[in-house]
Parts: sequence; structure tokens; C-alpha cells
Amino acid sequence: MTAGERPPGADDLDRSPVDLDSLRYDDRGLIPVITQDAENDEVLMMAWANREALERTVAEGRMVYWSRSRHELWRKGDTSGHVQHWQELLVDCDADVIVARVHQEGAACHTGERSCFFRSLR
Amino acid sequence: MTAGERPPGADDLDRSPVDLDSLRYDDRGLIPVITQDAENDEVLMMAWANREALERTVAEGRMVYWSRSRHELWRKGDTSGHVQHWQELLVDCDADVIVARVHQEGAACHTGERSCFFRSLR
Repeated sequence: MTAGERPPGADDLDRSPVDLDSLRYDDRGLIPVITQDAENDEVLMMAWANREALERTVAEGRMVYWSRSRHELWRKGDTSGHVQHWQELLVDCDADVIVARVHQEGAACHTGERSCFFRSLR
Repeated sequence: MTAGERPPGADDLDRSPVDLDSLRYDDRGLIPVITQDAENDEVLMMAWANREALERTVAEGRMVYWSRSRHELWRKGDTSGHVQHWQELLVDCDADVIVARVHQEGAACHTGERSCFFRSLR
């Protein structure tokens, strides 16, 4: 896109990094995390995180989610060995969704499939 | 993966297509939709759909979401021209998240960026 084709105001767009306090958590204190394979760009899974899960994700270099069913932090891979080492954490324009680009050990899905998205919508 | 390395029960995994009535909508009747560029696999955005939005998505061949702020169906591109023609609609193992692989006209993001995920998490 050349400069003349840019939408008005595009130059003013704030592309600066977002900190954990600037994220918009929902009324449960959660934010959706889309986990994408950094090697082949496949979408592996979607899960939820709270602020503490994201703090630990950032600090530990691997994905930590919040389990809505177990009501506890979920360090992905602690039980299965299927650890996700993140390469890049991205935030959307509204600061209410995260994309984590990861190096996946083994399968992301509890079924044993590499990605949770192995079925089509009819 | 060879047969001997498969996790127990993997052969019994149900990979059959999922219909709209078998999806697990949340307590607002919504399901998250991850929209991915079918051409370069970039994650473009995440939005929400209800059953009617998905019915129209399937019927019209283009993405229709539910706008949580405007409380109405949102036919992506009606205002902006940035229509999303879907190529494939995928459902996750729990049937509570959708991945839509689309051909994006113009920009997915209201800022004019092609993807909503143009910032990093600090």
C-alpha cells in the first residue's frame, strides 16, 4: 500500500507494546488466548487466561492458562508433557484477545491430535 | 506418527462434521470465531457469533458475526467493503470454538491494518 492509499489516521495508529494492566479482561477477569503454531501457522487451540496466568506465561517462557473447569492455573504440559514454548505474544486492536505463537511439543489437543480444530462445521 | 505411537483410543476419535445444533454456545448464546487468512494463515481477528450468525455465514458464503456492542448481526464488510469469503469452517474438540479460514477483501481490522494483531504484549 502506498502512502496515498492509506486510510485517514493510519499513520497515527498506536503500535506500541501493550502491558498486562492495559489488557481488557472480561467480567470473569479472563481474556481469550488463541494459540498458533509458530512453525506452520496452524491454529492449535483456544483457551483462557487471567492476569496471573499471563504473568507466569511471560516469566516462564511457556504457556500458562486458566482452567475454567478446574478453576485453577493450567501450566500446559505439566501432566501431558505437551509444553508450549512461546515465541511471540500478540494483542489485538481492542486489547481483549491474545495470539500466542508457540513451539508445540507433541500434541496441543487432549485427544492426541496436534490441533484441536480437526473437525469441520457442517 | 506410526500406528504404534498413537495414544490409546485415537482410532476411535470422532472426526465427523459438526452441525450448528451440536455447537456449545455460552450462556449468552455466543461462540468465539477465530478468523484466519486462508492464503497466508495469518490470524486476522476474533469475533463472536450466535446460531443465526452462523446460519447466515453458512448460507451466504461470507462471514456474519454477532456484534456484542451493537447487539445486532454484523455482516462483515457491509459498511467497509472488507468482506470475508470463507473457504473452510472448523470446530474444536469441545465444539465451543470455531476457526474460519477466509479470503479477506481489504483489511480485517477497523484500524485499516490487515490483521487486528499488530501489537505485541510487553
